[in-house]
Amino acid sequence: MQNKKSSRNFSDTYLSKIKLKMSGIKLTYFPSKALGESIRMLFKYGNIEFEDYRFDRAIWPDIKPNMPFGQTPVLEENGKIAHQSVAIARYIAKKVKLVGNNDWEDLEIDAIVDTINDFRGKIASYHYATDNAVKEALKEPLFKQIIPFYLDKLEEIAKNNNGHFALGRLTWADFYFVGMHEYLNFMTGMNLLEDHPNIAKVVENVFSIPSIKTWVETRPVTEA
Amino acid sequence: MQNKKSSRNFSDTYLSKIKLKMSGIKLTYFPSKALGESIRMLFKYGNIEFEDYRFDRAIWPDIKPNMPFGQTPVLEENGKIAHQSVAIARYIAKKVKLVGNNDWEDLEIDAIVDTINDFRGKIASYHYATDNAVKEALKEPLFKQIIPFYLDKLEEIAKNNNGHFALGRLTWADFYFVGMHEYLNFMTGMNLLEDHPNIAKVVENVFSIPSIKTWVETRPVTEA
Repeated sequence: MQNKKSSRNFSDTYLSKIKLKMSGIKLTYFPSKALGESIRMLFKYGNIEFEDYRFDRAIWPDIKPNMPFGQTPVLEENGKIAHQSVAIARYIAKKVKLVGNNDWEDLEIDAIVDTINDFRGKIASYHYATDNAVKEALKEPLFKQIIPFYLDKLEEIAKNNNGHFALGRLTWADFYFVGMHEYLNFMTGMNLLEDHPNIAKVVENVFSIPSIKTWVETRPVTEA
Repeated sequence: MQNKKSSRNFSDTYLSKIKLKMSGIKLTYFPSKALGESIRMLFKYGNIEFEDYRFDRAIWPDIKPNMPFGQTPVLEENGKIAHQSVAIARYIAKKVKLVGNNDWEDLEIDAIVDTINDFRGKIASYHYATDNAVKEALKEPLFKQIIPFYLDKLEEIAKNNNGHFALGRLTWADFYFVGMHEYLNFMTGMNLLEDHPNIAKVVENVFSIPSIKTWVETRPVTEA
């Protein structure tokens, strides 16, 4: 019996080690904040260990064909992989309990997240335009109409929600914006928080969480 | 006591009628399939009554400023409103049980839905471009690279998932694509199902569901 128990204990320990290794979480992304930082911050908020794999840009052409739809960030867990930054952020938000208390609350969070992502997409269309005529044509509508429109609306929402973007409390919608705001600043060459004190308060609220404060102070320094 | 009870019953009935009215669900959208049809089909699949409010295009300029971020579709329920088509579709999908069985499965669904939505966005950027130089510059990359790339990947996914887009079974990811495919055809001037038998199978699988079959046969006829 002693032997058997001993053997089972050894086996259990061994299996739990394998399981731990198999359930290891890995995030693959560029050495940037951009679309990966919200996810990293959600991990840090929940004190979830993960491999923060930042590939060298030089090897991106080799990696790209193996990524789902040629895109990152990519999440690996239990030997399975998934892409799409918003979808991954929502998945991690469930683990760290930054979601709604019911389906309607989740709808409210999802709606503002998709809105912020639309805003990001409109800025990215301009920033990444390789055709000069396209870039020039997109510039004025973006800076004169789209950016002020979104910022005014987001400022109003942040004001009505006490320095948050949904439900009047901290949710992953805040993380989604905060993790990306330096990237938005980089692409626009603006400081989006200037003259928008309530949007700035959303950032401040997230940055003042101890685990996030530590992360922001110690994370790799990147331009965007 | 008799009077009191009677009175309470009357009151209960009266309140439940008010509640019924207040919990009535209304979807506000253009008189089009486009971004609204996936949601309508999800309602029909679950046999959920809803007001299918299709506003006249002529009044859109009057409605637009009152819509969240100037956009539709908009869902109203219990006196609350929400926008963003993907977020609304996910919310209804939960009601009609076309979601995953766990958080990872939901991540898989969300990832393919956001991918289909990215594809839609790239087509829309071309289709709705008002600047001729922009439209011309976007045309060749869209038709020569982006559309074939997405269709080949989606075809492969549909093949590997038995005529579905996720989890090898019917989920709201299928509804999201199927409700929008005629709109994508309209914007591209193509038949995206041609030469893509497995994507066509996703459409066939959804269209052959009795409640959807009836809906497709009886729904308002619209171009896109």
